[in-house]
Amino acid sequence: MTRADPITSLQNPQLKRLVRLHTRRSREQEAVILIEGARELSRALAAGVQPTEIFSAPELHSPEAAEVAPTLPTLPTLLSPAAFEKVSGRENPDGLLAVAPRPAVMLPDLPGDAVVVVLDGLEKPGNVGAILRTADASGAAAVLVLGRGADPYGPNVIRASQGSVFALPVVALDEEAAQDYLTAQGCVMVACTPDAPHVYWDAPLTGRVALLLGTEHGGLPTHWRQAGSHGSGLSVRIPMEPGSAADSLNVATAAALMLFECARQRRGTGAAGAGQ
Amino acid sequence: MTRADPITSLQNPQLKRLVRLHTRRSREQEAVILIEGARELSRALAAGVQPTEIFSAPELHSPEAAEVAPTLPTLPTLLSPAAFEKVSGRENPDGLLAVAPRPAVMLPDLPGDAVVVVLDGLEKPGNVGAILRTADASGAAAVLVLGRGADPYGPNVIRASQGSVFALPVVALDEEAAQDYLTAQGCVMVACTPDAPHVYWDAPLTGRVALLLGTEHGGLPTHWRQAGSHGSGLSVRIPMEPGSAADSLNVATAAALMLFECARQRRGTGAAGAGQ
Repeated sequence: MTRADPITSLQNPQLKRLVRLHTRRSREQEAVILIEGARELSRALAAGVQPTEIFSAPELHSPEAAEVAPTLPTLPTLLSPAAFEKVSGRENPDGLLAVAPRPAVMLPDLPGDAVVVVLDGLEKPGNVGAILRTADASGAAAVLVLGRGADPYGPNVIRASQGSVFALPVVALDEEAAQDYLTAQGCVMVACTPDAPHVYWDAPLTGRVALLLGTEHGGLPTHWRQAGSHGSGLSVRIPMEPGSAADSLNVATAAALMLFECARQRRGTGAAGAGQ
Repeated sequence: MTRADPITSLQNPQLKRLVRLHTRRSREQEAVILIEGARELSRALAAGVQPTEIFSAPELHSPEAAEVAPTLPTLPTLLSPAAFEKVSGRENPDGLLAVAPRPAVMLPDLPGDAVVVVLDGLEKPGNVGAILRTADASGAAAVLVLGRGADPYGPNVIRASQGSVFALPVVALDEEAAQDYLTAQGCVMVACTPDAPHVYWDAPLTGRVALLLGTEHGGLPTHWRQAGSHGSGLSVRIPMEPGSAADSLNVATAAALMLFECARQRRGTGAAGAGQ
C-alpha cells in the first residue's frame, strides 16, 4: 500500500487499536492520549505535544481542519470517511485524529501568588474540561485531578477544554500526593462547600491558594472539608439568593467564580480602587 | 379504555402530538411547553405552572419520579415504556412528561437594585439553561431572550436550567421591545465584549443594570455594543491571562462572573469589608 492509499477496511488493526483507545484503560496501558479535532490538535502542537501518529480523512475536513492539515509535523495516515467515522468519538468528525504520548507533567514550584485547583471525584468530562478552560483563562498555576472520575486527558475532556488541558500543568494523582505537594508549597486550603461560614468574596484569596472542589451532589470528601477548617484553611460558600429554585451551582460555574475572585484580589482592586 | 390501561400503540394520536411538540414551531402554534423529568416538573408546579396533561410510565420511574408521581395535581395518562420512550427527548427518561400552557410572563417593574440579563442570539440550549440557573441563583430580576436562537421554554433549556426557568421572569421578545423596556426602567446598559476598555470588577454595577451577552463567536450585535458606549452605558471585559490558550470564555461562564460581581457589589463589600 502506498502512502496515498487510504485505509478503508474496518478490520484494519490500526483502526481497531484506535477504537480501543477510546477506553481509559487502553490509553493508560499504552501511556498515550487521543487528540481529535483541528482546534484541539493545533493547541496540543502549540504546547509542544509530539504526536506519534496522525490520521486524516480529507473528505471530512472542516475549513479549520483543512487549514491545519498542511502544517502537521508528520505525514498523516489517510483514512476513508467510513474508516474515520469508525474511530472518531464525535458525531460530526472533522477528519483529524492523533495519538500522542501521555504528557508527563511535573508539579510546578509555585510563585508567591498562585492558585492550584483541586478536583475531587468529578465525573463529567464536560465539567472537568470547562474548569480547565477557565483555569487557563484566569491564570491558575496547576490543576490536580483526584479519584477515578473523568480522565483529564480523555478525548471528551480535551474537547471541552478546547485544548486548554495542554496549556497548564494538569496532573492526575492520589489524595496523599496532592496533600503532600500542597503542604510543601505552603498553600492555604480553601474548601468550597454550600454550608461554609464565609462568602467567597470576603475571604482572603491572595498568596498560594488551593481551591478544593467536589462533585455537585456528593460535595467534598470529609478530609478536604477538614483541610478547609484546620490551621490556616478556609471554608467558603457562594451565596445563593434566598428563595431561588436553584439549590446549587454547577461545579464548573462555582470554579469560575472562585478562580476569577482570586484574580480580582491578586490585581489589588477593591478598597484602593487600584484597577488593573 | 379504562384509566388503568396504558397507551401502548405507537400510532396513538396523543403520542404523535407529543412527538410533534418537540419542535419549536408546533409548541408555538399550540402555545404550550413540554416539561419532562421529575425535578423539572416539580419545580414548574412549585412555580405555579398548571399542566393540562401529564403522562407517566411507572415502569421507567426514577426514585425521584416515584416520589413526585403521587403528588401530581391531575391523574396522569399512563404510557407503556416503549410508548414513553417514543415521546421522550431523553436518553434515559424517568417516566414523567407534561404539557402546560406557555407561561405568559410579564416584564417586571424593577426595584432600585436589579440585574436584567439580555441574551442575544444564543443557540445552545445548554448555555441558555445554565445562564437561567445562575441568574436565578444570583437573584437576577429577569432574563430577556432575543433573536431566533434557543427557545427559552424548549425542553432542553428547561432541563439545563434544572427548572430555574420557572423561578424568574424569562421573556422572549424582539430587540425593539427589549430596548424600550430597559430604557423605560432606567437600566444602565453593560455590554460584555472582549475588547472593552474596563475590567468588569472595576465597573460600577449597582442600581439597575442590563447585562448584554452575545454568542461566543459572533459576539454582541453592533447596536448592543453601541448601547454599552453611549450615554450612561458601559463596556466591560473579563480579563484573560496573557498567554493562555483560552481565547475566550464560555458565554455561560462569562454570565456567571458578571452576575455574581453584581451581587458582590450590591452587598457592599470591598472598601468597607461589610460582607455578611
